[in-house]
Amino acid sequence: MKASKTELQKKYKDFQKLKLNLDLTRGKPSAEQLNLANSLMTNLSGAKSYKLNDVDIRNYGEIDGLPDAKKLGSAFLGIKPSNVIANGTSSLNLMAAMMQTLYFRGNGDLAWKERKKISILCPVPGFDRHFSLCEEMGINMISVPLTGDGPDMDLVEDIVKKDKSVRGIICVPKHSNPTGETYSQEVVRRLAKLPKLGSKDFMIFYDNAYAVHDFSKSKKLANIYKLCEQFKTTNNISLFASTSKVTMAGSGLAFIGGSDKTLKNFLSYFSKIIVGSDKVNQARHVKFLKDSTALKKHMEKLSVLIKPKFDIVESYLSKLPEGIAQWSMPTGGYFVSFTAKPGKASKIYKLCFEAGLKLTPVGATFPYGKDPDNQNLRLSPTQVKNSDLKKSMEIFTLAVLLSE
Amino acid sequence: MKASKTELQKKYKDFQKLKLNLDLTRGKPSAEQLNLANSLMTNLSGAKSYKLNDVDIRNYGEIDGLPDAKKLGSAFLGIKPSNVIANGTSSLNLMAAMMQTLYFRGNGDLAWKERKKISILCPVPGFDRHFSLCEEMGINMISVPLTGDGPDMDLVEDIVKKDKSVRGIICVPKHSNPTGETYSQEVVRRLAKLPKLGSKDFMIFYDNAYAVHDFSKSKKLANIYKLCEQFKTTNNISLFASTSKVTMAGSGLAFIGGSDKTLKNFLSYFSKIIVGSDKVNQARHVKFLKDSTALKKHMEKLSVLIKPKFDIVESYLSKLPEGIAQWSMPTGGYFVSFTAKPGKASKIYKLCFEAGLKLTPVGATFPYGKDPDNQNLRLSPTQVKNSDLKKSMEIFTLAVLLSE
Repeated sequence: MKASKTELQKKYKDFQKLKLNLDLTRGKPSAEQLNLANSLMTNLSGAKSYKLNDVDIRNYGEIDGLPDAKKLGSAFLGIKPSNVIANGTSSLNLMAAMMQTLYFRGNGDLAWKERKKISILCPVPGFDRHFSLCEEMGINMISVPLTGDGPDMDLVEDIVKKDKSVRGIICVPKHSNPTGETYSQEVVRRLAKLPKLGSKDFMIFYDNAYAVHDFSKSKKLANIYKLCEQFKTTNNISLFASTSKVTMAGSGLAFIGGSDKTLKNFLSYFSKIIVGSDKVNQARHVKFLKDSTALKKHMEKLSVLIKPKFDIVESYLSKLPEGIAQWSMPTGGYFVSFTAKPGKASKIYKLCFEAGLKLTPVGATFPYGKDPDNQNLRLSPTQVKNSDLKKSMEIFTLAVLLSE
Repeated sequence: MKASKTELQKKYKDFQKLKLNLDLTRGKPSAEQLNLANSLMTNLSGAKSYKLNDVDIRNYGEIDGLPDAKKLGSAFLGIKPSNVIANGTSSLNLMAAMMQTLYFRGNGDLAWKERKKISILCPVPGFDRHFSLCEEMGINMISVPLTGDGPDMDLVEDIVKKDKSVRGIICVPKHSNPTGETYSQEVVRRLAKLPKLGSKDFMIFYDNAYAVHDFSKSKKLANIYKLCEQFKTTNNISLFASTSKVTMAGSGLAFIGGSDKTLKNFLSYFSKIIVGSDKVNQARHVKFLKDSTALKKHMEKLSVLIKPKFDIVESYLSKLPEGIAQWSMPTGGYFVSFTAKPGKASKIYKLCFEAGLKLTPVGATFPYGKDPDNQNLRLSPTQVKNSDLKKSMEIFTLAVLLSE
């Protein structure tokens, strides 16, 4: 990588000539990953399998999900099955429905729609769809930086104490999208206590999207709900997870967890916008991911496919000259967060794009799509073939060098 | 039925002794109906079946649905596939999402949330879930009577002209829930023209829930979208349907249709609250309900199971003395609407309940759960066994007589 600028430009032009169509934009599972869940397709057959938990899974009912599906959700969320609702298809719908519950009904206080301004704290860089959901609902987003151990809790606590419009925070506590960081025990403890500093209807949106998605030895995430019990803040948290990146993306189960009071309030709203839950798909998943041992085994099989992709990314990034950039080295999840020098991200993006490599748009990982320092890029290596990933990383690192 | 009051009371008490647990509350398919769709359970197997329309159905993407699923939706909605979005699981979620699109984004005018008062016209008696959705969102409901040919259009037009808070109307145009009526050609024509009298963001929510659900020779429903094209009101209608009562309730597909502009606006909102659509289930349905001929054949098989239930209901009701009540004799759909003498519905409900027969709560078929004349009851005969249905109808007619 000590090549001269001319050499780099020649290499870059050679790539352009290939008219490649590479894509690292989204955290999609690969076909090989999906293959590992193919038994879902046919694992219910015969009249016996149409009943589960004394319910005809083919008919209406059980808006809160089948008891066995709640049990499965409990393995993701770390709370007891009766405090879980199982539905589909992604945790985003459930988070949207929870936000709308607060918007139309509130959480033991005024409904959000009755207030002039609602603000939500958003650790950054974060998940673009969280931000676009808030923006759609007219919620004011306040960025707070992630530290590598979770959000800067001094700042978070300070804002919550001072800004009365703040009604919640959105977290991806494990293998955070895109930074890959897992919140430290201390951060989780302070988060669980946070509602005591804020409004009585404060809500922690705890999107544990990568709860079981380790591909290397990973830091353990503390059980926030137990800490909430300790601090008596269980009515101020809702937890989310899904099987989107476990079985089949788009055809998975999604889970929401919370206190009895939180779920009752949620269901009062949810039952107005949906008739029931897809219990056929729930029964398929229950049969496939029997218990937490089976789930763990399945995730191990997936990690065998996923880890090499992250190794490839790292092998290319580690060849970059020192000081030119920083990047995450996650032990799970789906993303690598790349931090270029300030002002360089859009240039790198453009160089990649013009050489046939699509990246997640610059700014997507920040509220309102605006990266204030124009320096964060998200890489999503899971779906592409290893050979394409190598080409993609070659282009990417070339673009980083050329952006200098 | 000319028995004396004492005899009737004796019969009633005998029923009470049986401690029955009968239920005519909801329009659920019977297990026999569901059995006819069992091939959905296993009809995708082998790598070849995981691709449809050049898409890996197991992965993320296609938030608007697979092209073939749109084609299927087109057979329900009577508009071209490109003007259909296929999703799941019930039309209620899609109607809720459409209402929220108008609430948060508007329809080419101010978002609903920016206005002091939003009113929606609700033909009555109607579908309880439509009403509870509006109520949840703080939408003011204005009842307009159904005539047997659809809503009283003189009154509808008059209100739309005079009341500037009115932004839409909710219709179930075929085998309406619960009255069973199908809107006449003239009513559909006037509906298609209605937006011209109202606000520019006026929206017809056209829930064609029973579009293909005839069990006897039925009146043909005019194609409203074609009429909207004629009147240039295609941006003022959204159409809904689902396979809930075709294949498996709760695990079906749902469809929304509308103009390019309407769907674009809808997707702008929808893509913020959901990641994609369950394309596995879509592919299952496409394979099962190949085309409109296959769909028609399947509906005929269902009607063989459904019609006898309605015949049983009619056979009991027709024995009631003249003048005591009126009721619908539907040729499709899932309900019989029973109109007792004013003030009698809650008494009949209570008598049934205390003899072990649950009915849909009185008032459920009206906005805010209030039947102004306390006289409408909804009977849903499809799910119960014929023998139980006979017992149920015996109790019901007894209760009607005893309520005198």
